[in-house]
Amino acid sequence: MQSFFEYIWQVREEWLEWCRQISREEMLKPRTGGPGSILYTLFHVIEVEYSWIRAIQGKEDEVIPFEQYDTLEQLKKLSNDCRAEIMEFMEEGLFANKDERVNVSWENQSYTKDEILHHVIAHDIHHIGQLSVWARELELKPVSAHFIGRTEHGKS
Amino acid sequence: MQSFFEYIWQVREEWLEWCRQISREEMLKPRTGGPGSILYTLFHVIEVEYSWIRAIQGKEDEVIPFEQYDTLEQLKKLSNDCRAEIMEFMEEGLFANKDERVNVSWENQSYTKDEILHHVIAHDIHHIGQLSVWARELELKPVSAHFIGRTEHGKS
Repeated sequence: MQSFFEYIWQVREEWLEWCRQISREEMLKPRTGGPGSILYTLFHVIEVEYSWIRAIQGKEDEVIPFEQYDTLEQLKKLSNDCRAEIMEFMEEGLFANKDERVNVSWENQSYTKDEILHHVIAHDIHHIGQLSVWARELELKPVSAHFIGRTEHGKS
Repeated sequence: MQSFFEYIWQVREEWLEWCRQISREEMLKPRTGGPGSILYTLFHVIEVEYSWIRAIQGKEDEVIPFEQYDTLEQLKKLSNDCRAEIMEFMEEGLFANKDERVNVSWENQSYTKDEILHHVIAHDIHHIGQLSVWARELELKPVSAHFIGRTEHGKS
């Protein structure tokens, strides 16, 4: 599970770097098929991941306003800050007691930690797949999505 | 790991069903940003998954020609057949000895079983994310990508 988090964080970092080549207008332009713009999609995966991990920790949900993080530099800072907090929690038991049930404030449901961890990983990879289509629509090469090697492969 | 496979197979099944609402022409139309058409993308995730799992089994790589599976019914059959074979192998040790190294015929590299399993899962979810953009471009609702509940959520 930890290696999936390392993977999604590395890919996210590379997408944040990738954004440097496009204008602020392109970054914020609404697009078809994802949560919104390229920058908003990156914000969304960071925010959703952070919310679920906070729920696992039994912490209250914290609404993060996109308006405060709608530049590449601010979003990078948010990404680094959230990741640092999650990494700390990794050492303190994020992956322990996976069958423990977690109540989430935004739903009348409880899930196991294990279900939530799977959900967060799938959620991230899914939205990054959307970014890759938009990149090609902009005639730009997307960040590699490969888990193995993080380079080109015959069997991609 | 097994629950990720169950998730990607369920989502794939739902996408194959989803395809019933679009014409054969739309299914096979080349699109920007993924491996090709909607049908080819579904073929691609099935084929790549199957190839990597065969490599883990120490079996020779088998080239599956898309031309033989370019209808929805044929592709469903391929999907079912490959899945049945992988499920059988699940019971016979797919997830055992995860640090075992695997040589793959299409690369001058070896990977651990664990790396390959992660790769296959990320590969699938990534391409399914691409399908979801194309669905919206066709003004159709995509299959839900949620791992949890497989229905709509506040924190999607």
